[in-house]
Amino acid sequence: MEFGVNFFPVVDPERKSAAQYYDESLRLVELAESLGYEHVQIVEHYGSPYGGYSPDPVAFLSAAAARTSRIRLATGAVIAAFTHPVKLAASLAMLDNLSHGRLDVGFGRAFLPDEFEAFGVPIEQSRARFEEGIAACVALWSGERTVFEGAVHRFGPFTGYPRPYQQPHPPVFVASASSPESCAAAGRAGHHLQVVPSVTTRQGLRDMIEGYRQARAEAGHPGAGRIQVKYTCYLSEDRGLALADARAQEGNYVARMAEAVSSWAHTRSSQYPGYEKFADKARSYDFDRALADGKVLAGTVPEVREQVARIAEEYGPDLCLSLQFNPGHLPYERAARAMELFAGQVAPAFARPSAAVPQPAAAAV
Amino acid sequence: MEFGVNFFPVVDPERKSAAQYYDESLRLVELAESLGYEHVQIVEHYGSPYGGYSPDPVAFLSAAAARTSRIRLATGAVIAAFTHPVKLAASLAMLDNLSHGRLDVGFGRAFLPDEFEAFGVPIEQSRARFEEGIAACVALWSGERTVFEGAVHRFGPFTGYPRPYQQPHPPVFVASASSPESCAAAGRAGHHLQVVPSVTTRQGLRDMIEGYRQARAEAGHPGAGRIQVKYTCYLSEDRGLALADARAQEGNYVARMAEAVSSWAHTRSSQYPGYEKFADKARSYDFDRALADGKVLAGTVPEVREQVARIAEEYGPDLCLSLQFNPGHLPYERAARAMELFAGQVAPAFARPSAAVPQPAAAAV
Repeated sequence: MEFGVNFFPVVDPERKSAAQYYDESLRLVELAESLGYEHVQIVEHYGSPYGGYSPDPVAFLSAAAARTSRIRLATGAVIAAFTHPVKLAASLAMLDNLSHGRLDVGFGRAFLPDEFEAFGVPIEQSRARFEEGIAACVALWSGERTVFEGAVHRFGPFTGYPRPYQQPHPPVFVASASSPESCAAAGRAGHHLQVVPSVTTRQGLRDMIEGYRQARAEAGHPGAGRIQVKYTCYLSEDRGLALADARAQEGNYVARMAEAVSSWAHTRSSQYPGYEKFADKARSYDFDRALADGKVLAGTVPEVREQVARIAEEYGPDLCLSLQFNPGHLPYERAARAMELFAGQVAPAFARPSAAVPQPAAAAV
Repeated sequence: MEFGVNFFPVVDPERKSAAQYYDESLRLVELAESLGYEHVQIVEHYGSPYGGYSPDPVAFLSAAAARTSRIRLATGAVIAAFTHPVKLAASLAMLDNLSHGRLDVGFGRAFLPDEFEAFGVPIEQSRARFEEGIAACVALWSGERTVFEGAVHRFGPFTGYPRPYQQPHPPVFVASASSPESCAAAGRAGHHLQVVPSVTTRQGLRDMIEGYRQARAEAGHPGAGRIQVKYTCYLSEDRGLALADARAQEGNYVARMAEAVSSWAHTRSSQYPGYEKFADKARSYDFDRALADGKVLAGTVPEVREQVARIAEEYGPDLCLSLQFNPGHLPYERAARAMELFAGQVAPAFARPSAAVPQPAAAAV
């Protein structure tokens, strides 16, 4: 099992300024590299405290690249619907070069009606723009004088600059919220996978991961495919503190998500079946149930170790957990301490036997 | 007079990789800060060696922000026609926070038909998209629940996240290639100005700067407005080396520009009168004439000092020269040495008497 660090800022400007959030997060990026985490990852959202401190993952990861030299940098995810593929492919290729080939690109469809409306993009086009975005970026990265003839975008012959550092292109991950079909499609295409367990059932997640692995194997792609699974993790020597933090921050996350998805109450899209119930789901959120159900990691070292063991058992050990340690308004010191505890005392229990170079305990993530 | 460092990569991938170009340029950014330069600045271009290593100024400047703490970071310029203003305003606000308020935003119209074609944007919309892009970004930065009703973009009520660090918003510069009218418009609007002397006559540049200053004063905006003027600078103790570098690199620049503008030969736009002759102009370029005409700075310390004195005399001393020291394929060491010589032996002759804090000689830029 591998472990990375995830950033999904759910932050009220009145409680933590953007400058402070970035300062703290970039310190955590440096700490993540020094502790041996596999990647740092950041989301793309607009226009509200729900992720809105990260409208441009490339900007954050370019700063992260300048502060580090080994850790991988992942978008989780970029939204091709909101950026023209000529720009998106070029920005990501720049980041791949700025980081000397450390980029992993997660692509997402987006799901907030307010974001589509702000960009003047019909939400019904979200799948077409997602699929074309991936196809166009891969084409621009892989060849020269690219001609692209999609339903939304048509361009070329056009050569993308700069060429990506990784050849033929950076690894492509598909971010899938809850659809076994799109996981299977990602597997058939030979892409890697990002999933978010908090928005699906455990059986649903097993089906998604299994569907992905099977489709990928049947299509004959080499390797098993990399799977990043996103959790928030509250870890402390003080059990009461970890659980109190978890309850408060998860409550804040859910409240902000409920606001962000509120426009689903008066939006219907055949592309997003059932999303009109999203706000109801958010409102009926119960922290204790979520914790018991393995949707969030929280507690002391032995507890979190057990929670991770359960994940390995349910979904297989061949995963990379992308862990958010500084959600919302958590003080920097608590996030840093949790990262240290996890790297030093939880991760080593799940080290891959194949890990080539023996590392000191704290770095054996 | 103030001095900054400008990056306009005209680089063949076969001669210098993008990763090497960024590595060297970020080292020069750190050097620029240590030598006391006022800003670093980078362009936005796509799809060819003519600027194509910088499709995303925010990515480069975010890395630069992570490596520095005082120097200002300028886009020179971002192209609003190619990025939706909701994304552009948010990316720039992120950079403003990543850098703790060190961002200056230059907006440009773009002028390469191939770029407009790749983005599927009619070149006839370039002015509308430029003007709307500035207006929409300023509106998103300055207020909440912004409603924008433009000819191209309509959105809102929408609140941009994050809020910019600088209040009400980062300084706005208008990048103007050759039009006194657009300089006057920039002055009336209270914006700052970026100009490129290499593409206009000296009289033309005087008219542009004078028109800007007059319009700005008449409109009653406080202060004189900041004017950034872009030159490439080849400076060495060895006169022959400086001039040989200048001749070779300027030749490369003009050849790559000629390719990039070649589609003007079969493009006509009422929005770009005379641009169909751009390729001819590029082909008739003569280095010795350009040097004699003050379009490029090159030579030893006394020569470049004299060239800068002439600029101060012709356009007024109240300028910021944005100097490119590493065009095209120049080795890092030569660019770094030129920056040191300029900061140590040219800039002090033009120090503002109002400079508040005395600096050691090498830092008195």
